Amino acid sequence: MRILVVNVNTTESITHTIAEQARSVAAPGTEIVGLTPRLGAESVEGNFESYLAAIGVMDCVMAYDQPFDAVIQAGYGEHGREGLQELLDVPVVDITDAAASLAMLLGHSYSVVTTLERTVPLIQDRLRLAGLYQRCASVRASGLAVLELEASPSRALEAIVAQAEAAVHEDKAEVICLGCGGMAGLDALIRERAGVPVVDGVTAAVTLAESLVRLGLSTSKVRTYAKPRAKQIKGWPFEHGRG
Amino acid sequence: MRILVVNVNTTESITHTIAEQARSVAAPGTEIVGLTPRLGAESVEGNFESYLAAIGVMDCVMAYDQPFDAVIQAGYGEHGREGLQELLDVPVVDITDAAASLAMLLGHSYSVVTTLERTVPLIQDRLRLAGLYQRCASVRASGLAVLELEASPSRALEAIVAQAEAAVHEDKAEVICLGCGGMAGLDALIRERAGVPVVDGVTAAVTLAESLVRLGLSTSKVRTYAKPRAKQIKGWPFEHGRG
Amino acid sequence: MRILVVNVNTTESITHTIAEQARSVAAPGTEIVGLTPRLGAESVEGNFESYLAAIGVMDCVMAYDQPFDAVIQAGYGEHGREGLQELLDVPVVDITDAAASLAMLLGHSYSVVTTLERTVPLIQDRLRLAGLYQRCASVRASGLAVLELEASPSRALEAIVAQAEAAVHEDKAEVICLGCGGMAGLDALIRERAGVPVVDGVTAAVTLAESLVRLGLSTSKVRTYAKPRAKQIKGWPFEHGRG
Amino acid sequence: MRILVVNVNTTESITHTIAEQARSVAAPGTEIVGLTPRLGAESVEGNFESYLAAIGVMDCVMAYDQPFDAVIQAGYGEHGREGLQELLDVPVVDITDAAASLAMLLGHSYSVVTTLERTVPLIQDRLRLAGLYQRCASVRASGLAVLELEASPSRALEAIVAQAEAAVHEDKAEVICLGCGGMAGLDALIRERAGVPVVDGVTAAVTLAESLVRLGLSTSKVRTYAKPRAKQIKGWPFEHGRG
Amino acid sequence: MRILVVNVNTTESITHTIAEQARSVAAPGTEIVGLTPRLGAESVEGNFESYLAAIGVMDCVMAYDQPFDAVIQAGYGEHGREGLQELLDVPVVDITDAAASLAMLLGHSYSVVTTLERTVPLIQDRLRLAGLYQRCASVRASGLAVLELEASPSRALEAIVAQAEAAVHEDKAEVICLGCGGMAGLDALIRERAGVPVVDGVTAAVTLAESLVRLGLSTSKVRTYAKPRAKQIKGWPFEHGRG
Amino acid sequence: MRILVVNVNTTESITHTIAEQARSVAAPGTEIVGLTPRLGAESVEGNFESYLAAIGVMDCVMAYDQPFDAVIQAGYGEHGREGLQELLDVPVVDITDAAASLAMLLGHSYSVVTTLERTVPLIQDRLRLAGLYQRCASVRASGLAVLELEASPSRALEAIVAQAEAAVHEDKAEVICLGCGGMAGLDALIRERAGVPVVDGVTAAVTLAESLVRLGLSTSKVRTYAKPRAKQIKGWPFEHGRG
Repeated sequence: MRILVVNVNTTESITHTIAEQARSVAAPGTEIVGLTPRLGAESVEGNFESYLAAIGVMDCVMAYDQPFDAVIQAGYGEHGREGLQELLDVPVVDITDAAASLAMLLGHSYSVVTTLERTVPLIQDRLRLAGLYQRCASVRASGLAVLELEASPSRALEAIVAQAEAAVHEDKAEVICLGCGGMAGLDALIRERAGVPVVDGVTAAVTLAESLVRLGLSTSKVRTYAKPRAKQIKGWPFEHGRG
Repeated sequence: MRILVVNVNTTESITHTIAEQARSVAAPGTEIVGLTPRLGAESVEGNFESYLAAIGVMDCVMAYDQPFDAVIQAGYGEHGREGLQELLDVPVVDITDAAASLAMLLGHSYSVVTTLERTVPLIQDRLRLAGLYQRCASVRASGLAVLELEASPSRALEAIVAQAEAAVHEDKAEVICLGCGGMAGLDALIRERAGVPVVDGVTAAVTLAESLVRLGLSTSKVRTYAKPRAKQIKGWPFEHGRG
Repeated sequence: MRILVVNVNTTESITHTIAEQARSVAAPGTEIVGLTPRLGAESVEGNFESYLAAIGVMDCVMAYDQPFDAVIQAGYGEHGREGLQELLDVPVVDITDAAASLAMLLGHSYSVVTTLERTVPLIQDRLRLAGLYQRCASVRASGLAVLELEASPSRALEAIVAQAEAAVHEDKAEVICLGCGGMAGLDALIRERAGVPVVDGVTAAVTLAESLVRLGLSTSKVRTYAKPRAKQIKGWPFEHGRG
Repeated sequence: MRILVVNVNTTESITHTIAEQARSVAAPGTEIVGLTPRLGAESVEGNFESYLAAIGVMDCVMAYDQPFDAVIQAGYGEHGREGLQELLDVPVVDITDAAASLAMLLGHSYSVVTTLERTVPLIQDRLRLAGLYQRCASVRASGLAVLELEASPSRALEAIVAQAEAAVHEDKAEVICLGCGGMAGLDALIRERAGVPVVDGVTAAVTLAESLVRLGLSTSKVRTYAKPRAKQIKGWPFEHGRG
Repeated sequence: MRILVVNVNTTESITHTIAEQARSVAAPGTEIVGLTPRLGAESVEGNFESYLAAIGVMDCVMAYDQPFDAVIQAGYGEHGREGLQELLDVPVVDITDAAASLAMLLGHSYSVVTTLERTVPLIQDRLRLAGLYQRCASVRASGLAVLELEASPSRALEAIVAQAEAAVHEDKAEVICLGCGGMAGLDALIRERAGVPVVDGVTAAVTLAESLVRLGLSTSKVRTYAKPRAKQIKGWPFEHGRG
Repeated sequence: MRILVVNVNTTESITHTIAEQARSVAAPGTEIVGLTPRLGAESVEGNFESYLAAIGVMDCVMAYDQPFDAVIQAGYGEHGREGLQELLDVPVVDITDAAASLAMLLGHSYSVVTTLERTVPLIQDRLRLAGLYQRCASVRASGLAVLELEASPSRALEAIVAQAEAAVHEDKAEVICLGCGGMAGLDALIRERAGVPVVDGVTAAVTLAESLVRLGLSTSKVRTYAKPRAKQIKGWPFEHGRG
């Protein structure tokens, strides 16, 4: 099967990292295709950028001209998943939901460690709407911006570990979710340091997407995620070559 | 003061209706400017279109080159308000929140009557995130699409009244919120028929926006709605003349 | 239009302060009438006194013999608003609800700073019932009694600012509500110090009451706030001259 | 021990019924004293009357000049209990809370059957604040006013049984609480008809009050229910002979 | 009346302590019978042991061959109460629920002080399901294992008092529930030290069980707690002499 | 990898059906081992039987003497999963949680269709504790006992389809979860009839268990699910040959 893993920002190197992370757990026979939006911010750390990401992700998925079996939206706490679910017949998995769903199978409560403080309410709100927030002990910010994760991996590791440890000891989290697509690959190190299971959203999403495909399950079309009605739309789809 | 009232769809006649409705309650000295997005759907009835609306609204507000004191987002249950709050220093009022806030001052519980069944979960989710859902007795769909409201006002009226009455008698609503910008102007008729206060989001939002401006209050910038960080963004702002 | 602003305690100087604060934001043409209950405590800081306030407020509003268009109950977290809503045909706005409603338009979460620790649960409970508690980050007490606010304004200011700052930094509040009618007038100073919008309930309530009147909206009478049934009542209304 | 059972309305015959009901389950050695407020309505069916009841009950308890060990407030869903808890050192039990507390020991969910539809939100709100609402399947109104219960017991019985049966079959209630002090004595008949345990608030409160006294437990005085602070109060206590 | 007080662990000395505690408050004419399971752990501090306790308690109650009027399950936060409610016609009271029910009559919020940190989530979950968690300020662990309570009473007292004080001052608890059957007897000492009412689950449960019996109330049999259906069961009841 | 799929009742033919269903979706290289408890009821439809199942499942997993990589508890809404999580180092997946987790990726809300009405509250409670209940539209009973599913598959199909359709049309469910291990294999038929995705817990659990194993994730051991402490336990483990 072919799974599209869509970055939410326009930084190709992050797309590459995410796709590699996805491939590291994909089942034999699963092809991972990494996509980068042609519209949007170089990193997503707030509502304005998150709404751009929603459109950027939908655009690049709709512009992809080969068949595929599932889509993973690889941004933590971003908007847009519901739009993709309307547009597509194949299953859509957001890494925010994927990480929380698996974390809840592993412990009584989980915490998310993310990048900047300003993104904490976005993640909380997305988990609330997803119905996955009740057992969330906390969402904590490492204080590092998305692009700093790439630039300073060791500093990032320390900052994330510090918050993970605080989540375990102060908030009573029993599992840590890595709250940023760009944290892919740090999970084993953090697990060792924090002493609890660490769930990376990208790899979690790959196994969930594969699960849905194998089970023949896809998005319900009876109500919320029914195909958009036929109507006149201005400025969409984006013409090729722009952005 | 000048208040921008931004439609969420691209249908100019609806922008006209909404702006007229806004003017009908604006205080002396308040200028209402109606804006129509140059990107988006002719009507918004689902997540894909709602995410387009989020971008379309931000685009047309940012492209507006005169000073203004507040913005009203005139779509019921749509995405985008948080992005505007980041981008602007002036207050932003969404008609979904405005209607619910005033309705809660008038009765123990309120219901929303909207257009199509598929939009009900969007409205519920927006009210949930806004923290205004606890006293919502129900969100009911009249079964009429947004554009049918304009085409068949008397049929629309009957369908909306039927749901308003069901909300009052079955769901124990004590106030009705009109759940669509395009319903502007029907409130007095429905109030007469349903026997309870009827809150129209557009007029509610005008008085709330004026209130905030008079009180010198605007969006908090300390965390969630801080200005977006300076960064490279592709495909934004939209160039003039496209869409 | 004429708006009655009713103090919840029997201290005339506080009524005067509240009325002046109300007048400072009232629209041209709005007359503010300050009323002081003839029954009740010199300050309200607990349930017993709050229940007396409920009766004292209803008594003085019913004894007012001129026409009026709206009533503001100017006590933070006190009982009684629902009774007024039954007795009157004009809208009733409690400053607790007013401040929270506007605060929620300005930030992702808000905190209340009030007087004594013992009043915190009353405020929390009133906000819970009003359906406005979900986005309340905290209710914090400055430790100063109501009458100390009048006697020592600079000490009061420091104590309130300290709690406002703690609310912003520890509880992640993005907006502060002043949780006492007697704090009227401190909002600009606190805003400057705490760096976030500060909502004063009295001024918020004035604009909300004006909004409802302008929109032709008043309390729903179909159920919870229907007129009291005709029946024999002992000891009510209070005879003139007592209290 | 001596327990004061305080009616919330001014109808002496209801006080008599309630006190007799209390005596029917009181332990040997427990003296039941029925009190009737000298201020308030002949029956309590709404917020205005409920606030009068709050004061009326506090007044008649404070005017009682003999020692007592506990107080029962015998109105379903009325205000005032928190005020009594501040004023007194002995335990205070409200029949609303008492019935719900015992009902929750008997089944997975319970319903309340009360008098008029307009009192339903009051009861729901009191149960919400008491923290006893989560397992409440419904609050249903028989449509009979309080005084009709006394005048037409057999008609009352039928109306209450009909709602109790609807609660069991439609709302999945497993226990019924009688939601009115005036329903005292109907419990055995309704239990037989509805096939589920029926909890009467007055008798439940007697055993709970006795339990607290026997265990040497009374209201916590550290915060919410601390003694009112010494201050000047106008019009209180009510002079003897008025009302 | 005869009340069975069933220990959840297999340590006879704890059964003895619990039964003595129960007798200290039982009404004249109430006989307390202490039962010790023949299956299970010497102390219960986790899910595995708690599930064993569920079976052990049901086994020893079903094996008891004399008539009885009520059963008290004397483990804090353990499984099993629902099974007993199905098997028996007489009322069943769990000490977790009993303590919380009475605590909520005494203060605006309560905390539980229990033994080991690992049992905290079990207690929280049991209170959540019981519908008694909303007003729980915290569940705190003293860090002492169940059997250490017996071995080192003075050390236990200090550790419990420290947590009780933290609950009052940091979590704003107004009442403390002793979260372990083995803490029976420490309540008076802790009350004196922490300055708030202290509710012991065993004595609370005795008065609640007596209350239900006196009121003629027992478990509803219409749905959740209906008698188990007749069916083939392997390995149950346990034969005499094993374990 | 080897996954143990443990039936919660003692009926071998149901174990066989469940194991076959599990094998139908297992990845190449995954060995499914079906286990039947030697203690417990022939079908589980209530709390007493569910607590027996908790012990029966733990017993047969602990008695299994070969290595394994994950355990699936194949009973819908039963007790015991937390105990297994303490005892084992490998991941444990309950089919109740598995079905809900995947259903939430497919639609805005889901419903469960189960067997007898009396099991509905058990399922609701397990979903509540699992933090997966918020988006549950309803739990509906087909009215057929577990063993009737095996005896009358066509009658079962009709009864389940009827409830699934009611869930979609009345409760607005967008996905259906089959609420009984014994319903394994009916999913395709019901999906065709009800028009929405149908999630079978057993197959969902297989893919989730495989996911966790592939990701190297297992139960957190820092708190709730830490290994039971070493202590004396009576009657456990069950001796071989009994039951």
